[in-house]
Amino acid sequence: MRATLMYEAGDVRVVDVPDARLIEPSDALVQVTRAAICGSDLWPYKSMPHDDAGRRMGHEFIGVVDAVGSNVATIKAGDLVVSPFLWSDGSCVFCREGLQSECLHGGRYGFEDVDGGQGEAVRVPQADGTLVVLPVGEDDELMPSLLTLADVMGTGHHAAVAAKVGPGKTVAVVGDGAVGLCGVIASRRLGAERIILLGNNPDRIALGEEFGATDVVRARGDEAVELVRELTQHGAHSVLECVGLEQALDTALAISRPGGAIGRVGIPEHDTTPTGVAFWKNAAIAGGPAPVRAYIEELLPDVLEGRIEPGRVFDRTGSIEDVPDGYRAMNEREVLKFQIDL
Amino acid sequence: MRATLMYEAGDVRVVDVPDARLIEPSDALVQVTRAAICGSDLWPYKSMPHDDAGRRMGHEFIGVVDAVGSNVATIKAGDLVVSPFLWSDGSCVFCREGLQSECLHGGRYGFEDVDGGQGEAVRVPQADGTLVVLPVGEDDELMPSLLTLADVMGTGHHAAVAAKVGPGKTVAVVGDGAVGLCGVIASRRLGAERIILLGNNPDRIALGEEFGATDVVRARGDEAVELVRELTQHGAHSVLECVGLEQALDTALAISRPGGAIGRVGIPEHDTTPTGVAFWKNAAIAGGPAPVRAYIEELLPDVLEGRIEPGRVFDRTGSIEDVPDGYRAMNEREVLKFQIDL
Repeated sequence: MRATLMYEAGDVRVVDVPDARLIEPSDALVQVTRAAICGSDLWPYKSMPHDDAGRRMGHEFIGVVDAVGSNVATIKAGDLVVSPFLWSDGSCVFCREGLQSECLHGGRYGFEDVDGGQGEAVRVPQADGTLVVLPVGEDDELMPSLLTLADVMGTGHHAAVAAKVGPGKTVAVVGDGAVGLCGVIASRRLGAERIILLGNNPDRIALGEEFGATDVVRARGDEAVELVRELTQHGAHSVLECVGLEQALDTALAISRPGGAIGRVGIPEHDTTPTGVAFWKNAAIAGGPAPVRAYIEELLPDVLEGRIEPGRVFDRTGSIEDVPDGYRAMNEREVLKFQIDL
Repeated sequence: MRATLMYEAGDVRVVDVPDARLIEPSDALVQVTRAAICGSDLWPYKSMPHDDAGRRMGHEFIGVVDAVGSNVATIKAGDLVVSPFLWSDGSCVFCREGLQSECLHGGRYGFEDVDGGQGEAVRVPQADGTLVVLPVGEDDELMPSLLTLADVMGTGHHAAVAAKVGPGKTVAVVGDGAVGLCGVIASRRLGAERIILLGNNPDRIALGEEFGATDVVRARGDEAVELVRELTQHGAHSVLECVGLEQALDTALAISRPGGAIGRVGIPEHDTTPTGVAFWKNAAIAGGPAPVRAYIEELLPDVLEGRIEPGRVFDRTGSIEDVPDGYRAMNEREVLKFQIDL
């Protein structure tokens, strides 16, 4: 089958690999129908050292179940399913608490014997705990939005939950990437009164405004902090940090209102954080890798009924063979988010 | 009148100062009957550069109102009152949200024209917003516990609230000082199932066990982390960081359970924090200077009815003239917390 591998920074290829197959009795074999390139895939695209064997890429996909292992009870061949970006057993202590990202028996796609999502098929471990059946056909026009439930929409939602977004709150979203824009959707959905989007790209800002951003700050660093202060007086109750770069986190801490909360979902550039500023104003810092599996059931009805349209973050669609150019285009910010139609 | 001044690290003196007096119409003049030395007073005691004028000390006190300004409506001469460690107007946007530590018109004792609490009398600004009338006599045996409502009990409670302590939770309290011990009281009061106290002082640990600690870890650093892991498997749901030193915060982050929360109230030694470990396990970091004023009403009935006895953290009582030796004794860990009977 065809699958995407990365060999080093900037070197992504679609190559022939052994067909995905069932190995464990809890597996499902999924023929991928839609997949995506994630902003987090751009980190190795910028920095990965050379690897002769290559690394299997991709962790956002929808597909049709081809076969299931003997222990799989809730998923069957023919089901159209979405997978969260991590697989999880659904039964361990963390899964039962809704923190599937910490599943004791879970893991990541593309490592060890588990296929990556940017390929024709994937062996999904712990299928019962991981996969969610979609009550639509595989060509449904909702497919792009359903695909975002694999990661980006759930991650934006996680930022909003971690930042305690709720009715009447003033929210600031740091970053106009796909996660930030989904953070805008999530904030509006959770009842925020005011949503300030911090970004610089005109097209992304325009989409953010359609998603519900009420104010836009087109600046970075101290200038951005000053502008948010002018808009809010004391800062934002909830700040969604959707970038991960040091400057973005510094900005997020600076624009948080005393007693507010910062929800971080950007993969941190640095391990240390100047938390003193948060301490002295009693601002909470929360977030991390999103337990997307926990959010699919909550967000799915809103997608199915058209109340949210996160699939609009996809601004280019290509075949599996177009994936290398999709990486290039996303890395050069020519494309916001690339969708693969298999 | 007599009052406590610090001139440099290690140099605390009780000297004659001008009598406290009303200045603003919102002031109350309070004759202090009980006061305390705070763990945070030991920071300047270790590090303050020389200051010829001296710095007025103290921010925890109970007293009898001697006179009030013309705008004071709820406090009257003769009232026995407790003051939180910060004064606040009770009416600004932050006070109304219960975050009086961020009051737009509030401040600290001992600065500008406001007296310190370790003296015979204090001009209390914003008396209506700041002071709470105590329904007891000034010689009541509950006085030590009531005095802790000025700071240490409210601060321990704030750590527990920030760390999301609740029924069924496993709590770890880092630090066996007076705040940590009050954190144990607060955790038990909020329904924690298990309370692990991390400390080294036998007397303090014994008191912590009487307050409700179910387990004790007599170690620091990696060894402490290992022992908490053995006790809890995945870490503590709620971690109360009641020290502020870098190692204590590192320990708090390390023993937090995935999805857990760290409540920080120790004045931070450093502005930066290795938050990466918290990000990757979705642990929240919250806390800061406690809005003690918000908690007095909640905690007061429990003190009055004897359900909690935080006053047991005072293990020495002296007169105003004994205060310099009280600083020495607390600094040398000979005394846990020193009470001044005026």
